[in-house]
Amino acid sequence: MKATLINIGDELLIGQVVNTNASVMARMLIAAGIDVCGTYVIGDNAADIESHLRLGLQQSDVVLMTGGLGPTKDDITKKTLCRFFNSELVENEEALNNVKRIFAARGYELTPINRAQALVPKCCEMLNNDLGTAPCMWFEHEGGKILVSLPGVPFEMEWLMRNRVIPKLQDTFLTETIINKNILVQGIGESFLSDLIEPWELKLPENIKLAYLPVAGMIKLRLTARYPENSKEPDISSFLPGLYALAGQYIVGEDCETLAELVHQKLTATGKTLATAESCTGGTIASRLTALAGASVYFKGGVIAYSNEVKETALGVKHETLAAHGAVSEETVREMVEGVRGRLDSDYAIATTGIAGPGGGTPEKPVGTVWVAVASKEKTVAQLMHYGDRRQQTIDRTVNQAFAMLLRELKNQN
Amino acid sequence: MKATLINIGDELLIGQVVNTNASVMARMLIAAGIDVCGTYVIGDNAADIESHLRLGLQQSDVVLMTGGLGPTKDDITKKTLCRFFNSELVENEEALNNVKRIFAARGYELTPINRAQALVPKCCEMLNNDLGTAPCMWFEHEGGKILVSLPGVPFEMEWLMRNRVIPKLQDTFLTETIINKNILVQGIGESFLSDLIEPWELKLPENIKLAYLPVAGMIKLRLTARYPENSKEPDISSFLPGLYALAGQYIVGEDCETLAELVHQKLTATGKTLATAESCTGGTIASRLTALAGASVYFKGGVIAYSNEVKETALGVKHETLAAHGAVSEETVREMVEGVRGRLDSDYAIATTGIAGPGGGTPEKPVGTVWVAVASKEKTVAQLMHYGDRRQQTIDRTVNQAFAMLLRELKNQN
Repeated sequence: MKATLINIGDELLIGQVVNTNASVMARMLIAAGIDVCGTYVIGDNAADIESHLRLGLQQSDVVLMTGGLGPTKDDITKKTLCRFFNSELVENEEALNNVKRIFAARGYELTPINRAQALVPKCCEMLNNDLGTAPCMWFEHEGGKILVSLPGVPFEMEWLMRNRVIPKLQDTFLTETIINKNILVQGIGESFLSDLIEPWELKLPENIKLAYLPVAGMIKLRLTARYPENSKEPDISSFLPGLYALAGQYIVGEDCETLAELVHQKLTATGKTLATAESCTGGTIASRLTALAGASVYFKGGVIAYSNEVKETALGVKHETLAAHGAVSEETVREMVEGVRGRLDSDYAIATTGIAGPGGGTPEKPVGTVWVAVASKEKTVAQLMHYGDRRQQTIDRTVNQAFAMLLRELKNQN
Repeated sequence: MKATLINIGDELLIGQVVNTNASVMARMLIAAGIDVCGTYVIGDNAADIESHLRLGLQQSDVVLMTGGLGPTKDDITKKTLCRFFNSELVENEEALNNVKRIFAARGYELTPINRAQALVPKCCEMLNNDLGTAPCMWFEHEGGKILVSLPGVPFEMEWLMRNRVIPKLQDTFLTETIINKNILVQGIGESFLSDLIEPWELKLPENIKLAYLPVAGMIKLRLTARYPENSKEPDISSFLPGLYALAGQYIVGEDCETLAELVHQKLTATGKTLATAESCTGGTIASRLTALAGASVYFKGGVIAYSNEVKETALGVKHETLAAHGAVSEETVREMVEGVRGRLDSDYAIATTGIAGPGGGTPEKPVGTVWVAVASKEKTVAQLMHYGDRRQQTIDRTVNQAFAMLLRELKNQN
């Protein structure tokens, strides 16, 4: 089973908008056992839509198209689909009721342009879009091939994929099932990890694949097993003890996509609270946690101590400490982390201070020098890191380093 | 002049990595007067590389390929290019010296695998990659068409595009020049803005195009002028007074991509300082500013007051205020913003408090209710917003609302 994705939209083509739809769709398809063999971004014009549609149907079993369906798009996509399938546009009653419902809820009047959203090619099956006015359309082509046209608005597309398209694809085709297991590793480089776990990797059975996904100083190891529907699910977990035996000291958790999610999960489960004192990460640690719903259960708050003055007044770092050792020092990061834990009265605290660059480096403390600390009631640990001269990368790596240190403390103490 | 982009990589195809290369490359090409007519993401295999290369050369003047060049990729891309151009791999001396230089700087020994990075098809021109070991390759095809193969690592690709590929494309083809002017608008919906400025838009000359780029409650208006090289640059600015006459009250700035950049620029220029007190945005305002190099000049720091306790202890919000009006109220946001400005001793301060959801809503204060305030020595302004029930969208809109309110105050006071 193979799929081609076609994302239509000038805003994608000219780079004003990054094409996140493709990666969201690919991940959902692959989880449903459907491989993606190509993703095409093309402009809003009939010739390109038709030629890439042909190419997609030639090379794959399913073509998923997004975009080109808005009320102002002059219906190029729908007209092209009509021509391709030798069909005509008809008003779909269910789609019209959906458009009416959405306009009534917003208190707007229905205009003829909006009513036209309910027109679909006669030959397609309309899949209702509960979140928007542009309908999703399902077409059957020669040889049992399938074409689906979806709106390009990311949250509408995602809802339709999850609730309409993927279930219907699974009903239509006998697909393989794919299961994944993520293991989050931190504190070791990719090539060193690869050497370390090679003996284990070589013994994995044929139907289990290992992928390395490095992100900002952290490596997500993904084990993927494929198996035919209705057969027994392979037990991925039975292979983990061998991995832990070799690389256990670097493994910070399982079954999450990011370290922030893992921290969120562990703190929520244990009922412990957290506070942050950020200098070089400038609020990024807190924003990663508070992006997750429910963070208020454990996250009390934090101080962004960007200037030395704020390190003193808001965290109680001693003036003498800053004068003697500087803002980027073990002494300062320890006083920051203990200061914020005491003042915000939390079980755990995280602190960062460093030189993200490009300015501010010295021969002794070059750009990329960062101190990270984690404190609990029992103890404070601090670690010195040397990153490079790319500002955002240093910030992102520092965030992951802080999360990994906290996760190690949580593991040790529970 | 038209270009096709081909991004090679299984990690892109299966959605593990979002394809940001395509948008970065498209923006650079368009700024150089080259249109992008299609972007293809394909897997690491010879048949797909060759067929899409053919398609790209058919439909456009330039094909830019990224990826498939790493030391572990088994050189599929290079071998495919050799076959396509009927050439053979030879060791390139300049590329080898570059690989040696990079390994020496890192203190690593040169292995045969790494040495193979210096092999390139004999028929290509090697463009040196100062930031990495994979070379960039420039090929001339029939009819004066050009193919360029670049490494997929984003910062290497970007450096090569800027320093090698774009200048060489501009030398090779007589291109049009494109200039852009961004105008940032906030506080009005897209369709209302469109109605408001339509009379002005209709009078723009043929060679100046207007685009609407809405992002999280802010709209970037982009005026683009194209003109042949060596002819006079059109004066885009001369059309701005007409826009200001109609929509001046909603315009918060020009010549930036984001409101954070605009705040960064204005505060750096005026020498004024800023502090933040964030509840529902959880550090996102601070992290957007501190992502920009040089933020320490004006950003003193902030408090992430996620719990009521921290609002009291770290910002001095009165217990009675929280008890009588709740955390999401005008009274609280005013005490937050004045508290942080006083305690961190800054010229300006920003505060946010709201219910990002999905939990925490009440009939009186549903999910999406947000208060934003900005304070200076002279005065405090606060504004109530009603966003929807999508957490990240509410956070992002609140951030832009806060930046826009600060920019209005900066404008009024300077």
